[in-house]
Amino acid sequence: MSNLTADHVTAAYDALMSGDRAKAAEYWDPQVRFLTPGNHTFAGWHEGLENFMDFIDTVGKASGGTFQIEPVTILINEADGYTVDVNKTSGSRAHATESASPYDRLEIEGLHLLKWENGKVVEGRGAIFGDGLTNFNLWWSPVGPKGERTTL
Amino acid sequence: MSNLTADHVTAAYDALMSGDRAKAAEYWDPQVRFLTPGNHTFAGWHEGLENFMDFIDTVGKASGGTFQIEPVTILINEADGYTVDVNKTSGSRAHATESASPYDRLEIEGLHLLKWENGKVVEGRGAIFGDGLTNFNLWWSPVGPKGERTTL
Amino acid sequence: MSNLTADHVTAAYDALMSGDRAKAAEYWDPQVRFLTPGNHTFAGWHEGLENFMDFIDTVGKASGGTFQIEPVTILINEADGYTVDVNKTSGSRAHATESASPYDRLEIEGLHLLKWENGKVVEGRGAIFGDGLTNFNLWWSPVGPKGERTTL
Amino acid sequence: MSNLTADHVTAAYDALMSGDRAKAAEYWDPQVRFLTPGNHTFAGWHEGLENFMDFIDTVGKASGGTFQIEPVTILINEADGYTVDVNKTSGSRAHATESASPYDRLEIEGLHLLKWENGKVVEGRGAIFGDGLTNFNLWWSPVGPKGERTTL
Repeated sequence: MSNLTADHVTAAYDALMSGDRAKAAEYWDPQVRFLTPGNHTFAGWHEGLENFMDFIDTVGKASGGTFQIEPVTILINEADGYTVDVNKTSGSRAHATESASPYDRLEIEGLHLLKWENGKVVEGRGAIFGDGLTNFNLWWSPVGPKGERTTL
Repeated sequence: MSNLTADHVTAAYDALMSGDRAKAAEYWDPQVRFLTPGNHTFAGWHEGLENFMDFIDTVGKASGGTFQIEPVTILINEADGYTVDVNKTSGSRAHATESASPYDRLEIEGLHLLKWENGKVVEGRGAIFGDGLTNFNLWWSPVGPKGERTTL
Repeated sequence: MSNLTADHVTAAYDALMSGDRAKAAEYWDPQVRFLTPGNHTFAGWHEGLENFMDFIDTVGKASGGTFQIEPVTILINEADGYTVDVNKTSGSRAHATESASPYDRLEIEGLHLLKWENGKVVEGRGAIFGDGLTNFNLWWSPVGPKGERTTL
Repeated sequence: MSNLTADHVTAAYDALMSGDRAKAAEYWDPQVRFLTPGNHTFAGWHEGLENFMDFIDTVGKASGGTFQIEPVTILINEADGYTVDVNKTSGSRAHATESASPYDRLEIEGLHLLKWENGKVVEGRGAIFGDGLTNFNLWWSPVGPKGERTTL
C-alpha cells in the first residue's frame, strides 16, 4: 500500500465526522467493522459503514455536540497496513453538561487501531488507557448519578 | 400495617409475574418504583407499575422464557413496612441457550427489598451477592462472548 | 432459635466493631464466613472470625476512621435463622478525605444477610443497591483518580 | 531519535522479560513509569524500572509461567518518539490451569503505547480491545469463580 500517511488518517476521520456518507466512503470500506470497547449499550462490533456512522450520530446526540477528540499522535505500519491514532476524548451528556460525575462527564485517553486495504479502512478497534473504560461504561450507561434512567 | 406475611409477598410476585396488570395492581402501587442494580441497559429506577411490568416482559423475552427465580427465604419487618425476599436466579439469553459464557448465562443469588404502604409495594430495590453484579451487567449487555452485538 | 431480635443483631455488630475479639465471639461463630461483594482487593469469602476481623481492621485503616454505617432497618426470619440489616455506608480514603471522586469517596446503600445458628452468626453476605458496587470496587481499588497507585 | 525500529522494540521487550535488570536498563529508563489498565490489585502507574519489573515477576508467578504474549504488529512514529506493539495475550492462574472461567483464564488482545527518549522507554501504557478489560480485572482479582479468595 502506498500513501498510508498521518495526513491520510486525519482525512479519513474528517470525512467520517463530517456526516457526509459519500465522502466517508472514500476512506472507509462499506463493509468496515468497528469494535467499540466495553460492555455498555453501544459496545461491540458495529458492522458496516452505515451502522458505524449511525453510532457516530448517536455519540453526537448523546453529548449534545460536546464530544471532542484531541489528537496526540499517529503511528503507521505501512507494510502491515495498520495505523494507530492516539487521542484525548471528552464530552458531557446532553442533559447534564455541568455535572462532574463519571456517569455524566467523559474524560479519557485512548486510541484506535485501524486496518487498511486498498487505501480504505476495513476494520477498526478502540481501546482506552488507565481505568478510562469504567468512565466510558458509566457515561454510556442509561443510569445517572442517582440511578435515574436517562434517555438519549 | 397488618398482614405483611411471607404468603402476601409470594402472592405479590405471583401477581406480578402473571403479566396480568389488573392482578398485579392489587399488590403493587401504580406509582411503584423499582431500582434494578448495575449499569447495564436496563439498570436504574423503573418508575411506575407500567414501566416496571414492561421491564419484566423484557426479561422474559431476552431469556426466551428461561428466567427462573428460586426462593430461598423471606424476611419481614412489619413495623417498618419492609420485606426482603432472597432468591437464586438463573437464565440464558434466548439466542445462546447452550453457552456457559457470563455474557450468555446468568447464575446469581440476590434479593429484593420491598417497601410497603397500605398493603401495596411502593418501592423495590434489588441487590446481588458476591460478584454476581458483574455477571448481571454482562448478561444484560448487548455484547456476546466475541464482542458481537446481540439484540433482544 | 429464640431471641433473634433486632436488638440481638445490633449487639452483634457492636461487638464486632468494638475490635474486642472475645466480645465478638459471643455473637459470631469462630468459623463464620463472610462474603464481601465485588471483585476488588478485599472481595470474596473471608473465612473465620479472625480473618473477618482483620478485614474490618483494614476497613478502619483504609478509611482513616471515617467509615460510617447508618442503620435503616432490620428484618428477621426466626424460623429460617436469617436476619437482614439495611444500612447507608460512607467513608473516605484516609489519604484523600476531601476528594469527591468515586475512587476516594464511598457512598452506598446496602445490606447484610446473616445466617444464625445457636445464637451466633455462621455466615454473612453483603450486597449493594443501585450501581453502588462500582463505587465499592473503585473505592477499594489501589487506583486513585489519576491512576496513581495508593497504599493502605 | 534514530533507530526506533520494530527490532529495537522487540529487543526492549526481550530484555525486560529476561528478568535481567542490567540488560533491561539498556532499553528502559530507570525512571520509566507504566500504566497497567483497569482497577484491579495491580492496576495503575508502576513508577520506576524496579517496581515495573517486580510487577512483571508477579505476572509470571500469578500465571505459573503460562503467560504468553503473541505479537501482532508494531507501529512507529519516530518523529514523535512513540511506538505501539499490538499483541494477543493469554494465561491461566497458577492454581486453576484447567478452568475456562474469566476469573481463571485470560484471553485478550491489546497493545502498549511506549514513549521513547534517547533510545530508552520513559513511559508506557497498556490498553485492551473489546471488553477484554473485564476479563483482565477478573483475572487479576483475588476472587475465584465461587467467590473464594485466592492468593498469588
